[in-house]
This record gives sequence, structure tokens and C-alpha cells, in this order.
Amino acid sequence: MSRIIRPQSTAELLKQLARESEDLSANDRRDFLRRGITAVGALAATSVAGGALAESAGSTNLPPNEPSWSRQLGHGVVEHPYGSPSRFEKNVVRRTVPWLTAESISSISMTPLAELKGIITPNGLVFERYHAGVPVINPEEHRLILHGLVERPLIFTMDDLMRFPSVSEIKFLECPANGGMEWKGAQMEALQFTHGMLSCCEWTGVPLKVLLEEAGVKPEGKWILAEGADGAHMSRSIPLEKALDDTLVVYAQNGERLRPEQGYPLRLFNPGWEGNTSIKWLRRLEVGDQPWYHREETSKYTDLLASGKARKFSFVQETNSVITYPCPEKPVKHSGYIEIEGLAWSGRGRIKQVDVSFDGGVNWVPARLKGLVLPKALTRFSVDAQWHGQPWLLQARAIDETGYVQPTLKQLRAARGSNSIYHKNSIHTWKVAANGEVTNVQIT
Amino acid sequence: MSRIIRPQSTAELLKQLARESEDLSANDRRDFLRRGITAVGALAATSVAGGALAESAGSTNLPPNEPSWSRQLGHGVVEHPYGSPSRFEKNVVRRTVPWLTAESISSISMTPLAELKGIITPNGLVFERYHAGVPVINPEEHRLILHGLVERPLIFTMDDLMRFPSVSEIKFLECPANGGMEWKGAQMEALQFTHGMLSCCEWTGVPLKVLLEEAGVKPEGKWILAEGADGAHMSRSIPLEKALDDTLVVYAQNGERLRPEQGYPLRLFNPGWEGNTSIKWLRRLEVGDQPWYHREETSKYTDLLASGKARKFSFVQETNSVITYPCPEKPVKHSGYIEIEGLAWSGRGRIKQVDVSFDGGVNWVPARLKGLVLPKALTRFSVDAQWHGQPWLLQARAIDETGYVQPTLKQLRAARGSNSIYHKNSIHTWKVAANGEVTNVQIT
Repeated sequence: MSRIIRPQSTAELLKQLARESEDLSANDRRDFLRRGITAVGALAATSVAGGALAESAGSTNLPPNEPSWSRQLGHGVVEHPYGSPSRFEKNVVRRTVPWLTAESISSISMTPLAELKGIITPNGLVFERYHAGVPVINPEEHRLILHGLVERPLIFTMDDLMRFPSVSEIKFLECPANGGMEWKGAQMEALQFTHGMLSCCEWTGVPLKVLLEEAGVKPEGKWILAEGADGAHMSRSIPLEKALDDTLVVYAQNGERLRPEQGYPLRLFNPGWEGNTSIKWLRRLEVGDQPWYHREETSKYTDLLASGKARKFSFVQETNSVITYPCPEKPVKHSGYIEIEGLAWSGRGRIKQVDVSFDGGVNWVPARLKGLVLPKALTRFSVDAQWHGQPWLLQARAIDETGYVQPTLKQLRAARGSNSIYHKNSIHTWKVAANGEVTNVQIT
Repeated sequence: MSRIIRPQSTAELLKQLARESEDLSANDRRDFLRRGITAVGALAATSVAGGALAESAGSTNLPPNEPSWSRQLGHGVVEHPYGSPSRFEKNVVRRTVPWLTAESISSISMTPLAELKGIITPNGLVFERYHAGVPVINPEEHRLILHGLVERPLIFTMDDLMRFPSVSEIKFLECPANGGMEWKGAQMEALQFTHGMLSCCEWTGVPLKVLLEEAGVKPEGKWILAEGADGAHMSRSIPLEKALDDTLVVYAQNGERLRPEQGYPLRLFNPGWEGNTSIKWLRRLEVGDQPWYHREETSKYTDLLASGKARKFSFVQETNSVITYPCPEKPVKHSGYIEIEGLAWSGRGRIKQVDVSFDGGVNWVPARLKGLVLPKALTRFSVDAQWHGQPWLLQARAIDETGYVQPTLKQLRAARGSNSIYHKNSIHTWKVAANGEVTNVQIT
């Protein structure tokens, strides 16, 4: 998993794919293409194979092979008051990269994006990032303190906070380190590890603006320190403009209370911004006249440029996209129609357009945006294609409503060098080989 | 829980509330109103109480009472690959009504609506209804058979189905028996039991229309029988018009695969229609020229009218709404500002308007619709109010985009009698007493 694959040019990669394609003998190829095709008849452009029904099963007969589960009673209604996925889905879980961090209490688990559909991430699969492990907090004892440059310092219980008028919004949440291992070269051999520090939920809470109005921000108040109740006292400085724009103080996620690893009972939520600014287990908001330059905004969460200087307060998660099918975990197993799918998102607003390339960025076709297209939320896109064993260099390129175009890695490195860990939002490439396998490659 | 409360007129109930209010002595009332109010200063109209910060805690000091969880490390990242709610939320679960059904394998569990926010129901809390328990189905062995009056009978594996272009839509799902226990009188003393056979998820699957195009429906094909793989072989007849409109064959729910109790690995989904038509564990679709009149559409899921005749194929879940805060599980505990919240939904399309009454339907104020207003989805609404111990008879009344106005119980009974179990979508009343307690009452 830690092997860094040498970046190659598009021309090199296309040549290599052509060679691999020739190596696959004509017979092998016929066998491969035949696999999984049992349909009959002339079908529509998006048609896929269903098997022809055995002649013995007429319209009034019961289907053949009545399975065992149709001939017995299942479990009753009271056994699982809080539900779980099927045991056949036991591999659909968050996963860690063991070599990535020294300690599990300050580590990351990633969302299995290859297995997900639509735009909502179920709470049990939302990626995790802690700095001192998950604290167990009794909500009745938890308090939020709002102080500093305010007229009326206030302490809120959870009951107090839940009495304010609430808002619910579907927004993505992403760690700025998402894809960070890819700055130096294609390295991670799964979508879960290249892009899995990403999720999208319906978040419910109180606009921070409302709490600040209660307390009365003094004219010299320009920044807000948010501090967590975890052992790390994780903290970030947030400009007042953001707080007055769309920052939420959040207590629910996809309808129910926050999960422990997402900040139960209370977190900050800065839509479209670095996940780490959305302080979990939120206990303290202090209004000040300048940023605090705490550890997590100096030694960490800054972007070291080629010049040796570091970008600081690089809050916005810029326009990004990735193809989720096919991908290394989901190779192509059938010839014929294939719906190429992916996710696009922008910390600045709505996704306006996504293009897909089959040849490493030489030619592009427009994708359709599927379902809801919401600001600062995951947006699902797809393109219809036919695959008959031809090799592909698959890419997606997103454009948001501000006109920002997702950059190539070359463009991103020209602007930021390659020392950074964060904000790698460049166009990603999957190589689809003649046998349908998908690998992570990087085009320079 | 099974006590049926005598229905009363609005005038009777208002008189009774006035008496209760007088009984509460002036001293008691002052004590009650003072409870929970520790705020300072003149606050906005939607203001709620935060506690004033102790003088000893200045803006540069750490807050007092550093809790134990802030002074230690929490659990690490690998222990919970599929997440669960906090143990402090252990009471937020689906619940059953023991006397409602004879057997748990053919029973119902209900969603804790009082605890939920926004419009998404997390998968672990979506209400359950089985007819022969939950079968354990291996998705690799599962097949969907499409036959009957078609040109090309087909058998689909799960892989086949997932190759078709998918759609993802946020839609409500409701059992037509929701509120059924209330036809005769106010009976259930919790929102979870009056309205908890209701949920809203993002569903992903293939339009049934696409599968029917693959198979080629013969001109005489007018109805479709959908049959489940559970031991009950639960089945319903669906008109072809619906199938060609918006019916989906669904394999994912809020991003991940269907939960076992929701039909894993495959179910039908008829947006806006009776939940039981959205056949779970879907194994067979047969095209015919007339409905099948199976057990679940004759002896069950028909509506017995006062005339002795029964309405059949009453598919649409008509416009409905309910106030979710306050409610019996969530009494009013503070005086002053209160955000009255609720949910509205219509099987015919979008919610256009919701009104709220504080006096049992004599006067109405318009509610605001919060967040996304999607067709055939739950829509959250709210009204700002001030409460100072005055008694309320709280009601909500929804109107959908077709102009359908949610009826009173009197109107509903005039049209349908009171023998039915299903489709009770009449205006619901919560009585808020002078001490903040909320009970279920019925206005005749």
C-alpha cells in the first residue's frame, strides 16, 4: 500500500496500455468478454444483461429454485431495536492505513466511497479523525462557554442550545489531508484511501450568528477561537465573517444526535471548509481581535510551498471530483454498457459542470449531474459508456458555480509545489486495463 | 397505552384547560416559570436562556470545572469500524406496541420521531413492518424474475441490476396503518405510536420502467404483481401507470445497501404510496392484464366504509402532518421562546403550506417550511411562539401542491366512517397543559 508509483506522461501511459492490450491473446479476450453475458434480444443503449428465463417457468408457475429463506420464517420485530447492516455487507466499513499515523488515538479512518450510492453518507460510515481519541461525554454535564470580546458572556447547556430555532442542511465534510498521500505520486491502491476522508450528511444545529447575537460581539471582535472538550483541546481560529455567514453549532447528523466520533454532543460545523475547523466536542467559543496561532494552525494545517513559506488559514476545500465506479475496489467485470459514476464537490458553492475523460485528459465529454445539486454538498455525476476491453485513462474534472476549474496535478504543483500534505484537489486518474482491473496512476 | 380517551369538542377542551390553569396556584406558577431561566439581558424575539458566565471566568482564563473527559485520552480509531450512537442515546430506538399484533414475526416497530431532526431518518431507526419476519438472504444467490405478459422473460442477478443507470431520490415511506389506532379515539400516548410508522431516506435503484423496457411489456399488460422472497411471499398488484411513472427497484438506502429489515438485498419502492406496496426482498415481478386480488389487497389493506363496502387499491398516502415538538415525549420545560416544530408530507407531491393552531383549530397561523421541500418527502416546518404557562390545543394542517387540504377527523369520518385501520391522515391535536405536559386528545 505504501509503494509510490512513478508518475508517467499521458503518452507513456497510453502506449503501455496499448501493449498490454496486444498481450491479451484473442482467445483470452473472447472468454473475458463472454463472461457475465447471458442476455437475449436487441436492447436499448443503456441495456445490461438479464438472464433469459428458463422455458419451463411460464407466467403462471412459481419461479424455479425456491430458496431456503422463502420457505421459513425470519427473525421477529423486537430483536434489533437499533438496526445494523446485513452480515453480507461486513466488509463495508471504515478503514485505517496502519503506517499513516503513529497512534490510533490521533489517526484517521476512511469512508468506503466505492460502496456508497447517492449523496448521503450513513452515520456509521462517516470518516473519523481524532487528535486524542473519542471522549465519552455526558450531555447533561456538557456546557458550551461563549466569552471573550462580548457584552454578555454566556454558558449554554445542551437543553439551552436545542431551544433555539434550528436549521438542517445537507453539506459535505472533508479532511484537507484527503488525497494528501498522493502529492508525491500515486500511492494508495483504493478509492477508500485516495479520497475516503470525505462524507456528506444532513446536519442540524443553531447558526453561530444567533449565539453571537445573544452574547453581543464587541466592535473589536474579529476572530473566534473554537475549542474541543477532547484531551487534545483541539482548537482553531475562525474569522468572524464566516461565523456570521453560515457556521453552525451542530447537535444532529442525518436526523439523530451526533455520533461520538463526530463530536457528540456538540460540534462546530463550517460548511465547505477544512474538516478540522469544524471543532468536535465543542466546549468553548472565545471572541478575540486576532487569530490565536494555536498548534493546529501553525505546525499543522498549513501548506508548505516550494519557496519554504507556508500558506496559513487555507480554509476552503476547493472544487474536487473523483470517479467512484470503476475504481480499484470495483473493477469492470462485464463488457457492454457501463455507467461511469463519481462525486464532485466545492467548498465555494454548487457544482456547475463535470467532464469525464477516457484518455487521460486529451478529450472530454460532459457528465450528467444526478439527483440533488446542493451548495457545498456532494454531487453525484455519471456518463454512459460502452466498454469492450479497450484500455482507459479515466479522469473527472469539476467546475463550480464561481467558475473555478479543478486543476491538473501539474497546475497544482506549479502553484503550490509538492511539499504540502493538504488541499490536493487535482484531477485524479484511474487506469482501466484490458482485463477490467483498475489501478491508481498519476499523470505529470 | 390501550386506554381510549373520550373525544371532546374544542369548546369542552378549552374550558377544561382554563380550569386546570386556575388550579395551578400563583406561587406554583411563578416557580415553574422561573425554572430553567438563568439568562441575563434583553434578548431577541427568538432568544433563549444561556447562563451568565461566573465572574471569576474572564476571557483569558480556562473555563471552570474542566470535566474528566477533557483530561484524558479517548478511544482510538480502529475499535468501531461501523459506528453506533452514543450510549447516552440508548433510549432513541424503534419501539413496538406489544398488544398491537399477536406475533413479533408479523408486527411493527416505530420510529422515534420526537428525537429526530431534519428530514433524513437514519437507517437504524427506520420503522419496520414484516409479515413473516426478516429473511436472511445471500445477495449472490438472490434473483429477480420478470415474467408474464412480456416479450422476453428475464432473470436478474444483483450484479445485473446494479449495472443499470441508477437514480437516487429522497422520499418518505409510510405504513397506511400509521395512526390507525386513532380512528376510534385518542389512544396512543406518544408521538412514536401515533405517527411513528413513518420515515424518509435517500433511496437508490433502477427505475422499474427501464426493466420493463428490457423485457418488453405486451399490449395487454396492465398490472404488475410484485412478490417478496420472505416466508409470507408478501405480494401486491401495482398498476402499470405507476410502474412507468416513478416506481424504483431499490438496493440502497441513505448511501449504503438496504438494511435487512428494509428488504435486503432488493425491494420495490413506490414513492408516495402505501409502504406495503413497496415489496421487500423483491424476487418476482409478473406482468398481467388485471390485479391479482391477493390476500394483502383483499382481507388487508382495504378500507371498510360505513356502508359496509370497502375501498380497495387506496394506494396514495394523502397529505398529512404532525407536530413533533412539543409532544408527549417532549413536554415544554421552559417558559419564553419556543420553536414549535413538525413534519408534513404528501404522496401526491410537494407540501405547499402548513398552518398551526394553538386553540384546536379556531385560529391558524402560517408555519415556515424549513430546509429542503422535496416532492413525496418529509418536509419540516416550524412556528415561533412564546409560552408562559397558557394552555394550548396544538394542531398542524398541511396543504400540498395539488391544493389538497388535510381534513379534520370529522370530515374524514363523514367520508370514510370509522371502521377503517388505514389512511387516517386527519388533523392531530396535542393538548399542552399549564405545567407543560403534553397529551394526545381528539376533537370531534
